[in-house]
Amino acid sequence: MSDAMSGTAQIGVTGLAVMGRNLARNLARHGHTVAVHNRTGARTKALVEEFGKEGDFVPAGTPREFVAALERPRRLVVMVKAGEATDAVVGEFAPLLEPGDIVVDGGNAHFSDTRRREEALRERGVHFVGAGVSGGEEGALHGPSIMPGGSDEAYAALGPLLEDIAAKAHDGAPCTAHIGPDGAGHFVKMVHNGIEYADMQLIAEAYDMLRAVAGYAPARAAEVFRTWNTGRLDSYLVGITAEVLAHTDAATGRPFVDAVADAAEQKGTGRWTVQTALDLGVPVSGIAEAVFARSLSGHTGLREAATGLPGPHRPPLGERDAAHFADQVEQALYASKITSYAQGWNMMRAASEEYGWNIDLGTVAAVWRGGCIIRAAFLDRVRAAYDADPALPTLLADAEFAGETGAAQEAWRAVVATAVRYGVPVPGLSAALASYDALRADRLPAALTQAQRDYFGAHAYRRTDRPGVYHTLWGQDRSEVRTDG
Amino acid sequence: MSDAMSGTAQIGVTGLAVMGRNLARNLARHGHTVAVHNRTGARTKALVEEFGKEGDFVPAGTPREFVAALERPRRLVVMVKAGEATDAVVGEFAPLLEPGDIVVDGGNAHFSDTRRREEALRERGVHFVGAGVSGGEEGALHGPSIMPGGSDEAYAALGPLLEDIAAKAHDGAPCTAHIGPDGAGHFVKMVHNGIEYADMQLIAEAYDMLRAVAGYAPARAAEVFRTWNTGRLDSYLVGITAEVLAHTDAATGRPFVDAVADAAEQKGTGRWTVQTALDLGVPVSGIAEAVFARSLSGHTGLREAATGLPGPHRPPLGERDAAHFADQVEQALYASKITSYAQGWNMMRAASEEYGWNIDLGTVAAVWRGGCIIRAAFLDRVRAAYDADPALPTLLADAEFAGETGAAQEAWRAVVATAVRYGVPVPGLSAALASYDALRADRLPAALTQAQRDYFGAHAYRRTDRPGVYHTLWGQDRSEVRTDG
Repeated sequence: MSDAMSGTAQIGVTGLAVMGRNLARNLARHGHTVAVHNRTGARTKALVEEFGKEGDFVPAGTPREFVAALERPRRLVVMVKAGEATDAVVGEFAPLLEPGDIVVDGGNAHFSDTRRREEALRERGVHFVGAGVSGGEEGALHGPSIMPGGSDEAYAALGPLLEDIAAKAHDGAPCTAHIGPDGAGHFVKMVHNGIEYADMQLIAEAYDMLRAVAGYAPARAAEVFRTWNTGRLDSYLVGITAEVLAHTDAATGRPFVDAVADAAEQKGTGRWTVQTALDLGVPVSGIAEAVFARSLSGHTGLREAATGLPGPHRPPLGERDAAHFADQVEQALYASKITSYAQGWNMMRAASEEYGWNIDLGTVAAVWRGGCIIRAAFLDRVRAAYDADPALPTLLADAEFAGETGAAQEAWRAVVATAVRYGVPVPGLSAALASYDALRADRLPAALTQAQRDYFGAHAYRRTDRPGVYHTLWGQDRSEVRTDG
Repeated sequence: MSDAMSGTAQIGVTGLAVMGRNLARNLARHGHTVAVHNRTGARTKALVEEFGKEGDFVPAGTPREFVAALERPRRLVVMVKAGEATDAVVGEFAPLLEPGDIVVDGGNAHFSDTRRREEALRERGVHFVGAGVSGGEEGALHGPSIMPGGSDEAYAALGPLLEDIAAKAHDGAPCTAHIGPDGAGHFVKMVHNGIEYADMQLIAEAYDMLRAVAGYAPARAAEVFRTWNTGRLDSYLVGITAEVLAHTDAATGRPFVDAVADAAEQKGTGRWTVQTALDLGVPVSGIAEAVFARSLSGHTGLREAATGLPGPHRPPLGERDAAHFADQVEQALYASKITSYAQGWNMMRAASEEYGWNIDLGTVAAVWRGGCIIRAAFLDRVRAAYDADPALPTLLADAEFAGETGAAQEAWRAVVATAVRYGVPVPGLSAALASYDALRADRLPAALTQAQRDYFGAHAYRRTDRPGVYHTLWGQDRSEVRTDG
């Protein structure tokens, strides 16, 4: 064990709950000397006792010892609860740091907090890196997807270490890259989680239809997902869906999924994503419906009150029709997935412009190919689409994806129509299809909406045939006046 | 004209843009002496010159004169732009006021700002009333719907004046009432606007289907809306839909709606509603889809990029089928409207509990029966539902509304399925139906979602057969452990 005052640790981790501990171990296993610190010393001690043989740890009892243990420029990773705890720790360490030092926040911070903290430390010459870390406890230990946002200088000093410990994609590339300045990394991590919500909701709806419409028991549905996982839907989430659906509950001998209460919880990043998209003016209906679906599932009072509301009672399809339907569900799920990923990427493009982040949208796809929850074969193709055309206005406009949604759209419509007739709630699939149809529409009924706004609020409108802003004198002779001078 | 120092005005209005001016005139026309003030004196002068004959105005050149012109306790209505302007004006007047005086903010403030301002003035003994005012310029002059939030004492002094100038419902009752403490009034006004967004989106979708599926030209669709407006859909918005659709563009001789650019704008209260609902954990998919639909309509870049994406090409229905379809659309629109109003009321119930506002949910319906944009015959029945059972968990559970949605649900499904097959985007109608189906479901696939969360994040789950919180050791032998001690 090194002397705490020697300043030989390449990096330090403060906050040694499971995520911090696993990240520290991951760093040490890759040959880095890691200073470790925790507010209560017991965790520091336990880490070194349990895992000290995995590499070089430098335990530090106080913030001052911790800082002194680090090489310069110092690299400190803060792994504490997002919010006030992060402010407290940053506030505690800031006075001990020198210009050029780098503070990394590896928690799930809101990107606006990261922007604030980055600005405050920048004034002291200290780099603040808001790094989204995805992959949970196992990812932190064996290789997460890491999305760091901060200065170029900070990434130059930090990047090689992050690239060491990050997951590796199938082509060996590390699942991390410099996302952009200040809040860009945490923003992208937030959108990752929002897309994860949408993906999970679409999968849940597909499963629900396989049961209610195709009449498949969970084990049979698991086989369907397992097959899908060998094709274009190949992804971690589809894979674990098959695992979960195939699992039998030991206590009852029934399918495990039937033993689980049907109330899905959430920790807030999906909500943040939708709230932020609303601020940016970007439609993210797939993520919003997923967040609402989870909320609704937990509203016992509402659900009990609505029990017994009339719905259709249709028997499941026969064997042959069921197989055909399952194939259509694959197409609907895939087309909806493209649509909801397009919404997520639209949102990153809008934020990148709003905040001047200059995010490389293809790189984001590359970074998500391993380590994170939405890792999927599909992301190679998202990357290819943005690499081929960095100015691509939306994923749906990429020729390959457009071809696929085009080929899937009849099946997609059939699936949504069937679900609706069977009374299976498909908020995600139908929102995705509505978004697809609205985007491709030559004319939207938004013209009526805008005309109504002019009628009741004199909000004026533009015309299709010439420039200018106009108002109709609805309460008078209904003549039209130009309002933009 | 009274002496500015006499202190005889019953009420004062500061901020004399069109809303403030019309509200002042409305008060004067009802026999109240109204002190009027504006930051730039020209507007004050113009008001008195143009409308002085309508009643007793006391023009005030300075804040001090304005305050001095008022009876005690003073009643000041602030009609300035929401946000910083409101803070500036309140900050300017606060030092001139005495305990017991009442400041009314009639702007479109965010309820959280109102809560902050109310608290700050309460410390000085001054009442702050955040009053939502709906009905636009015409409403302000001839009778708006007013939603005041504040102390009982303030309402006792203010209520009679508001009841004078408010719109009157068909039964003669004034469209105002004490909504609750602090931010309750502005909150309710925000939800009003959110519901308005959802209503307008549903109407737009109904119109779109009448054109694309039934093959009705705008004039014919106008007739359909006019007929609907004589039945259970009787409402201001359905009425003006008929007016707008029947209107011919003078410049081109074409239907007016076809001359209007199909980009619907928004001012932000719909967005606030959705963001707040997300914070409260209440699903408001109808409002969210409406906000997103407006955003999407204005995203020229996205829409251009998506032009040419494949969709179906189906001819409109024949005459007889079209008439049947139009009847089904009425049912779908009505059922969707009930569902989206239910979401709005769920949100008010949740906020009332969260903030301890004790909002009478039937009274809110009563206050919206006149003056505001969503005024509708329907609201009498919403009021009746909550009057009959103030603890009603959701509007959909009311026996009468449940009966109606039940009777409409087959047509509702047929309409959504048809729109989907025709490629007409119906995000609002399909979100409402999905919400209905999710609420009434015995089992939701949220069980799969929660099981997945346990798989990748050890987030644990509850069981259907016994209490407790459990985790399955997915990475080990898949046995189950209890995690709640």
